[in-house]
Amino acid sequence: MFGISKKKLSTESYKGVRDFYPEDQTIQNYIFKVMRETAEAWGYNEYGASVLEPLELYKSKTSEEIVNEQIYSFKDRGGREVALRPEMTPTAARMIAARIQELPMPIRWYSIPNLFRYEKPQRGRLREHWQLNVDIFGNLDFMAEVEVISIAYDLMKRFGAGEKDFEIWINNRAFLDDVLKKASVDEDKKQFVYRLLDKKLKMTEKDFNHALNSLIGDESAKILMETIYFGEGLLTTMKDSAGAKYLNQVINNLRNAGISNLKFKPTLTRGFDYYTGIVFEVFDTNKENPRAMFGGGRFDDLVGSFSSQSISGFGFGMGDVTIRDFLTTRNLLPDFKSRTNLYICVAPETPIKEVYKIAETLRSNKINTAVDISGKKLSDQLKSLDRRKISYVMTVGPDELENQNFVVRNTETREEQPGNLEEIIKILK
Amino acid sequence: MFGISKKKLSTESYKGVRDFYPEDQTIQNYIFKVMRETAEAWGYNEYGASVLEPLELYKSKTSEEIVNEQIYSFKDRGGREVALRPEMTPTAARMIAARIQELPMPIRWYSIPNLFRYEKPQRGRLREHWQLNVDIFGNLDFMAEVEVISIAYDLMKRFGAGEKDFEIWINNRAFLDDVLKKASVDEDKKQFVYRLLDKKLKMTEKDFNHALNSLIGDESAKILMETIYFGEGLLTTMKDSAGAKYLNQVINNLRNAGISNLKFKPTLTRGFDYYTGIVFEVFDTNKENPRAMFGGGRFDDLVGSFSSQSISGFGFGMGDVTIRDFLTTRNLLPDFKSRTNLYICVAPETPIKEVYKIAETLRSNKINTAVDISGKKLSDQLKSLDRRKISYVMTVGPDELENQNFVVRNTETREEQPGNLEEIIKILK
Repeated sequence: MFGISKKKLSTESYKGVRDFYPEDQTIQNYIFKVMRETAEAWGYNEYGASVLEPLELYKSKTSEEIVNEQIYSFKDRGGREVALRPEMTPTAARMIAARIQELPMPIRWYSIPNLFRYEKPQRGRLREHWQLNVDIFGNLDFMAEVEVISIAYDLMKRFGAGEKDFEIWINNRAFLDDVLKKASVDEDKKQFVYRLLDKKLKMTEKDFNHALNSLIGDESAKILMETIYFGEGLLTTMKDSAGAKYLNQVINNLRNAGISNLKFKPTLTRGFDYYTGIVFEVFDTNKENPRAMFGGGRFDDLVGSFSSQSISGFGFGMGDVTIRDFLTTRNLLPDFKSRTNLYICVAPETPIKEVYKIAETLRSNKINTAVDISGKKLSDQLKSLDRRKISYVMTVGPDELENQNFVVRNTETREEQPGNLEEIIKILK
Repeated sequence: MFGISKKKLSTESYKGVRDFYPEDQTIQNYIFKVMRETAEAWGYNEYGASVLEPLELYKSKTSEEIVNEQIYSFKDRGGREVALRPEMTPTAARMIAARIQELPMPIRWYSIPNLFRYEKPQRGRLREHWQLNVDIFGNLDFMAEVEVISIAYDLMKRFGAGEKDFEIWINNRAFLDDVLKKASVDEDKKQFVYRLLDKKLKMTEKDFNHALNSLIGDESAKILMETIYFGEGLLTTMKDSAGAKYLNQVINNLRNAGISNLKFKPTLTRGFDYYTGIVFEVFDTNKENPRAMFGGGRFDDLVGSFSSQSISGFGFGMGDVTIRDFLTTRNLLPDFKSRTNLYICVAPETPIKEVYKIAETLRSNKINTAVDISGKKLSDQLKSLDRRKISYVMTVGPDELENQNFVVRNTETREEQPGNLEEIIKILK
């Protein structure tokens, strides 16, 4: 054994999370921009919080599966139990409860937090993802559903999706409860039936039927499945159910507003235990990979977990991984371009002070400008441009400085345009 | 014991982190916007990564104090040691090392990550803060320092700071090493002397002298302090030191570029162990609370910890808590205004479908519009506006719809302007 080999640190990120190199960050920023613009167009205000929350926050209301198997939690140096948030809604409810007297109702809030879940990393399922959360709070009727589902629809449109690229599936847990009553399902089995129905699409029919029969008995299962079979017809046949009435109002208002890809799905339940009424899901109709992309629902009791005063809420969460996948598959993502507008290459013997003055003038005219300070040969400076994706390049040397005459080149079309600094600014704007 | 009292969950956030209600988030977004615009003006590209990193990343290069006492770390469900990042530079170095062959040099990167440190929460010191990181990588000479320190200066100017509101302090660890050699300080005591000097401003002179004497002995301490005493004069008397030469080049170039509040501070070292050359600090000159706000330095060996190929870097990090404090104290923060441009109040008996059509037209003209769907009395709808900070309000009822004649009111000046929808759009733009 001769010599000392210094062990190098790994360049890999933690498992299941992503590094965002500038080209990835640009896409991420584009997605966030569309999310922000949409939410703000509808009058929603951005809020935020720390990714660290007391673990207690999730114990009572988030789904059991998440808390027991998927949450990131640990004890801090002071013995406090903390969690990396697995979802944002409990945080929003906590914050609203804290200022329930001051905040003007209804409250329209949005946020784009990162969320953590300990999952086996796979396509579309990472341990960390970002998620647009759009929520309206206040004791509102079905107009809350109409507005928020319209925002989900608007969001898809603003991302460039066509009417046929997706469907909006809708159901009402309150209506489903009426159906369960009709099938004589015990109250204490409700949450289990919800969860089973939530997984129906991912199971074979045989497996599903077997599970349902063991859960609620053959007789109840038969009535339940026969009832559900009628699909949208149910909303007419069971029109006296309060749940059906409410659902009809939501559906009619959304269709009146021009949303034609809305579908009633009596088995839709969504994962979270705190949903109490309407739930919806945006479904990717891509034949090669049909799947739920995102969704949301009505939560009547969540704020009440923190405050003696209860307010109802309705909202949804859209994840960045899923939407990016959708946009990539359908070729809806813009090309990566650097936000640097101009790259200045510096010829030998050029007084750098003068180059910096030019750059300063350009910057004060809102032209993002990078100066090559590598001291390399001009040909090497220019060569590096291929990978920089910057739209314009300009070489500055003693001649250009003396004549105050410059040439900018479009790096894509290779078109060159000459001019003094003022003219160059006009070209770049 | 009669009755059941249901225990409510706490509405408090985890200790030492912040909730961002919309008015806080707006300020945060303003600060991030200025940071982004400045970094991008200089040709820097945004990158990002997860707040979760392998703990290993910080063990070798971040300061001992941070890793032993302040880092948030835990074992995940698979037994991996992970950390909530306490700083961003190791992540940047890791990512660059991973693609060192592909990335065009020099690399200009920035990011605004959240960082965690387990500290006793106090003014300006929280457990989570956000920090702009600006770094240039590549084997560059003093032009790297000149550019990055110019960016720090530009950033302060873009935040509205005057030349006298702050100072930029600069030193060179390589030069300090020459001074330490002159004072016969042992090589293995260097890091301890660095750390002691870093704390000098926060200690009494007596305590500092005592600590220094015990660390390096009376004789060395005397020579060191006598040498340091000469301040900027040292750069002339020790001009043959390579460290002094380099420092002179940086200082001269920055002063040539018009930065007049630059000061040489021979005791400046900055906290991180990985700094090797120039270090700098932006100092708040506020007499009531003079203090270091942020800073950075040269790191020659950091990328080399991950890769057989080494590249040098120079960068700084500016925290959101400190700058917000600075801006608040100097009254430089803009007022909070909602990003919603218009609030539509809805009169009784108004067909909501028609109101939604108007809102849709406004939104497609980039006017962010909220519709009151509370069903409350008009007077109550209007009253909620006081706390919404929305610039304009418009009431829509059957009359307005029939005549297609509307009135918008500026909520601040109370000025009213009538018009059809097209005219209203012009007013709001």
